[in-house]
Amino acid sequence: MRETHGRFETYLHEFLARHQERYAYGDWVECLYLDVAEHVTRKGKRVRPLLFLGSLAAFSDNGESLAEPALRIAVGVELLHASILIRDDVIDRSERRWGLPTFQKQVEGRLGRRAGRERAGQNIAMVVGEILHALAIECVAAADFPEERRDLALREFLSLATETCCGMIQETTLGLRDISRVSAEEIRQMYALKTTRYTIEGPLVLGAMLAGASDDTILAIREFSVPVGLAFQIASDLRDFGHFDVSDPLFQSDLLEGKKTLLVREAFERLNECERSFLQLCMDNPSLGEPSIHKVDELIRKSGAVAVLEAEVTRLFGMAREILETPVLTPAQRDGLRFLKACVRSQVAR
Amino acid sequence: MRETHGRFETYLHEFLARHQERYAYGDWVECLYLDVAEHVTRKGKRVRPLLFLGSLAAFSDNGESLAEPALRIAVGVELLHASILIRDDVIDRSERRWGLPTFQKQVEGRLGRRAGRERAGQNIAMVVGEILHALAIECVAAADFPEERRDLALREFLSLATETCCGMIQETTLGLRDISRVSAEEIRQMYALKTTRYTIEGPLVLGAMLAGASDDTILAIREFSVPVGLAFQIASDLRDFGHFDVSDPLFQSDLLEGKKTLLVREAFERLNECERSFLQLCMDNPSLGEPSIHKVDELIRKSGAVAVLEAEVTRLFGMAREILETPVLTPAQRDGLRFLKACVRSQVAR
Repeated sequence: MRETHGRFETYLHEFLARHQERYAYGDWVECLYLDVAEHVTRKGKRVRPLLFLGSLAAFSDNGESLAEPALRIAVGVELLHASILIRDDVIDRSERRWGLPTFQKQVEGRLGRRAGRERAGQNIAMVVGEILHALAIECVAAADFPEERRDLALREFLSLATETCCGMIQETTLGLRDISRVSAEEIRQMYALKTTRYTIEGPLVLGAMLAGASDDTILAIREFSVPVGLAFQIASDLRDFGHFDVSDPLFQSDLLEGKKTLLVREAFERLNECERSFLQLCMDNPSLGEPSIHKVDELIRKSGAVAVLEAEVTRLFGMAREILETPVLTPAQRDGLRFLKACVRSQVAR
Repeated sequence: MRETHGRFETYLHEFLARHQERYAYGDWVECLYLDVAEHVTRKGKRVRPLLFLGSLAAFSDNGESLAEPALRIAVGVELLHASILIRDDVIDRSERRWGLPTFQKQVEGRLGRRAGRERAGQNIAMVVGEILHALAIECVAAADFPEERRDLALREFLSLATETCCGMIQETTLGLRDISRVSAEEIRQMYALKTTRYTIEGPLVLGAMLAGASDDTILAIREFSVPVGLAFQIASDLRDFGHFDVSDPLFQSDLLEGKKTLLVREAFERLNECERSFLQLCMDNPSLGEPSIHKVDELIRKSGAVAVLEAEVTRLFGMAREILETPVLTPAQRDGLRFLKACVRSQVAR
């Protein structure tokens, strides 16, 4: 996996350098391109492209997963992820991601002291997100694979991008609803669309499709992806909760933004009437600021929801292991997917 | 042209109805899909799909421009346009388009009285714009044309969408600059990327590519598109200026949003020092409201810029006519493009 990661990083850098001249429309667009390139090449875990390359290798007879066409599609998978993050940060008005300024804040910084720069930064970031999305699609459309397989992969890629959007819409609408009126089932559905589809299922299915896997195999991969994706998202939520630093003034709390995570929902379920009211009040009023974040943090810890969801993550990974026992998969394919599942799990370890 | 328009409308309605079930992810997404379908099927001029179908017919030997694959790509061209408009309205925070609520306002209305509905409406509209963009790309990718031509068309389609985005970025950054520091040349470049590329050049080139036109022919079409696109945008600006109603409280003036149009730039060029300062003041302070719109309106009328730009539109259409004389085009192709130019011109008649 380490060799694959290295090859991917090298190819990603080359790819971004090669495409620079296409954005030479005056100072601004070119300089944004360089900013984007810097953003995309920030040290990342590359979960999605590595899952794609791993799946392609597991389902190929010749194991040529590091050839140029494969790496190009892997870049497409990563660029789609980058475009989703940039737009997610605009939607959430986030100021930081992984301790560094978000893309819109970086653009805002470039606009100096001009009036209207905050909104302009958000608008430009949205449009840049769209350019990245188109560039990602182009990576898949232009990759040199046999026509039929590539067409299938392109359709899959377009539909997973669309479904991720549908998940973003669900997240926004759930965000406006009172926590007492959002069911755990609705949150799971939202996670499936917003996370699983493009993080787990998409990369695995794309790899298998391009390796020429049968429809039955693809179906088995989709089934396997459901618990893996849900476990990945829950584990990410738990890790973010464990790491979050309430004293960072720039910390944009998902909690106070009214985000409906399974963690909040599970905690709510376990609190008494008075605590519930308090949680709701804090979530409805982000302006209450730091003291209320502390209180929400305390209520969630106290509720026992963390332990419940940790057990759920274990259960889901176990469920995925069972699905792999299907006779549709060969022993080598089963081993490949088992290995990729372990990679996903290690990425969200706390 | 009327028959083509009718066939296109019928196909568009069928297409949207056929795709509905793909968005059956709970109440919200499905209901947004219906809203989008309603938006897209609002009575429109369909300039772009008709140019595409007209070009395909002009460059085809058999003239099969109304077959299903052609109509599907025409729908893609129109959906790209719809996605650009929806996002443009979010960027400009516009409340109305063609006298009806913009998409984000419609979504906001659906959110009732919930807190945060304005921002949620904007966020959801942005994401819906992205879904439409992906659906548009799918129309081109899935159309049943010979592989080589379709690949070429898909690359063109992806690149024109990207370049339109670059134009949107230029518009935003020009919007933040003082009018005295924006040159007419910069505005023309921005128009070329933001309007010409997807409104004129893209549809014409896509039609010719799918009809199998040579590289020389494609190049001639690109050259022809430059003056036509610029004339189209200037004429649209003039028409909007002629029709704008300062007494409509919902009227979102491009002027007061700091938009740098050639009209404003030409007017500025022709005003005296004091008038220039006044114009700048109004453009930098949208909050001054209606009285300043009246004053800006008056200054532009007085400057004589309207007559200058009307003459420019005539000159540009004449230039396009001359480009058509190239020996690269057959007489029939020349006639076809001349006819399409007349259609564009009639669409922006005041």
